[in-house]
Amino acid sequence: MKLGGLEAGGTKMICAIGNEKCEILEQQSFPTGDPEETMGLIKEWFLERRPDALGIASFGPLNLDRTSPTYGNITTTPKPKWKNYPLLSDLQNALGVPATIDVDVGGAAIAEWEAGAAKGSKSCLYVTVGTGIGGALVANGENILTHGMHHPEFGHMLIPASEKDPAPNGFCPYHKGCLEGLASGKSMALRWNTDPATLLPDHIAWEIESDYLAAMCHNAVVCFSPEKIVLGGGVMKNAFLYDMVRKKLLERLGGYLALPKVTEHIEEYIVPPVFSDSGTVGALMLAKKILTTERGEN
Amino acid sequence: MKLGGLEAGGTKMICAIGNEKCEILEQQSFPTGDPEETMGLIKEWFLERRPDALGIASFGPLNLDRTSPTYGNITTTPKPKWKNYPLLSDLQNALGVPATIDVDVGGAAIAEWEAGAAKGSKSCLYVTVGTGIGGALVANGENILTHGMHHPEFGHMLIPASEKDPAPNGFCPYHKGCLEGLASGKSMALRWNTDPATLLPDHIAWEIESDYLAAMCHNAVVCFSPEKIVLGGGVMKNAFLYDMVRKKLLERLGGYLALPKVTEHIEEYIVPPVFSDSGTVGALMLAKKILTTERGEN
Repeated sequence: MKLGGLEAGGTKMICAIGNEKCEILEQQSFPTGDPEETMGLIKEWFLERRPDALGIASFGPLNLDRTSPTYGNITTTPKPKWKNYPLLSDLQNALGVPATIDVDVGGAAIAEWEAGAAKGSKSCLYVTVGTGIGGALVANGENILTHGMHHPEFGHMLIPASEKDPAPNGFCPYHKGCLEGLASGKSMALRWNTDPATLLPDHIAWEIESDYLAAMCHNAVVCFSPEKIVLGGGVMKNAFLYDMVRKKLLERLGGYLALPKVTEHIEEYIVPPVFSDSGTVGALMLAKKILTTERGEN
Repeated sequence: MKLGGLEAGGTKMICAIGNEKCEILEQQSFPTGDPEETMGLIKEWFLERRPDALGIASFGPLNLDRTSPTYGNITTTPKPKWKNYPLLSDLQNALGVPATIDVDVGGAAIAEWEAGAAKGSKSCLYVTVGTGIGGALVANGENILTHGMHHPEFGHMLIPASEKDPAPNGFCPYHKGCLEGLASGKSMALRWNTDPATLLPDHIAWEIESDYLAAMCHNAVVCFSPEKIVLGGGVMKNAFLYDMVRKKLLERLGGYLALPKVTEHIEEYIVPPVFSDSGTVGALMLAKKILTTERGEN
């Protein structure tokens, strides 16, 4: 089984070939430029290697409605030339093999659920806290919240402002008080007028950040009750955040629900990702899934 | 096909017999008293009528983990004698027919999705705004958020406080700033020191209430993106609330997502329930589902 995976990001496109264990055997990245040129390079790379199936974990928003004629297209991205780009059908036509697509964070969630930090859990919420904030909920190997009209835009969840926050409306151009506008790396940079990586662990910035991430985790617990919450992304490289978020989540929940996996094992409940390249591994896992399904082995 | 349905509520238990269309042919309610006495009456009623299957839509919290030895039990209810009560297994053993259980709001959501306000939609979020607040998300005929450790406790979602609210922390004994503590009928009564039904439509109470319900709908759209949101429960008897919530949801979303079903058809997006007895009808639908599954007709 030779699997192809594409992690399509806003700044680079990572192409990979993997084996049936979804281990990366070879990879190459191309800068995300004009669609024609970039897609030409990607197609050429995969055509030389001839994978049996292709999985794509892409930046969004995407059309993930399988009944739609534009299924697999990028939709309203701020990158004008990529708007409405038929990412899935273009690659599927060029390669002539089974192909499937999910949002990048969906790929990452599947990777962590299948073989990473949430291995063995029935369900897993993966949230990336980076320049932006995104999330996906996997249960039984499926990104289950894609059953709606649109894939989740967790980052735009409204949460209460922290009393300590000097900019409690946040920085999202669309929504006052949404998670991304309050807690993304970009919002931190705007609030403190510096790269968040330069803020020392005792800076109030982290008190505020952990307030927001704990509120998000609270909402995840009461709405989806995942068996595991994996927090990844650049902001979470500040590893002291995990304990702050864990402590504040327990305070927030206040013992309302009888959830021993949360209340008695919080260190194993909110965890960092295992994969540093979960988007790419997730893309390979998507390829494996579509191949297994098409071969009727599942 | 003779279906049995039990809507188990905190104050009364509604027993019903329905036909294969889930139309109620006969029903009887008993006050929710001591478990032994109340369950005795319920069992007797159903044993006299001998349904082919039983569906239960019950107050919670419930254990809905099918792999658990205590699946179908009531768990941490404030009603002491019902705590840990094996509601499903007790009735299943007494009647000797296929039986299944979901939370009350899960039953209501399935009823509205199958034959009510969300008929024909792929997914439906049903939220009851009454003494408390609860919700369930149905997609493809299944209450999908029960895949987690616990069924959803939507009512305890954290949302931003309204600037107009004189009591912006809310009245939930567990959580500062949760939806139920801010927007349930009970919270309204505590905030205004009167029965909310007596508040005139131009009272600021409704401005605040619609702020909160719009924030909840916003979070539902960005997290689950249901094709339909059905708002039921006692508070929504104040029908002017629907338009207030619709208008504020559009303002909140600020055109962030391309969702024509929301932005162009908001009157059909946030709607009242069709059934006045959706819990009972939902219980019958649960019975039909388990019977169809067991007979291998599905």
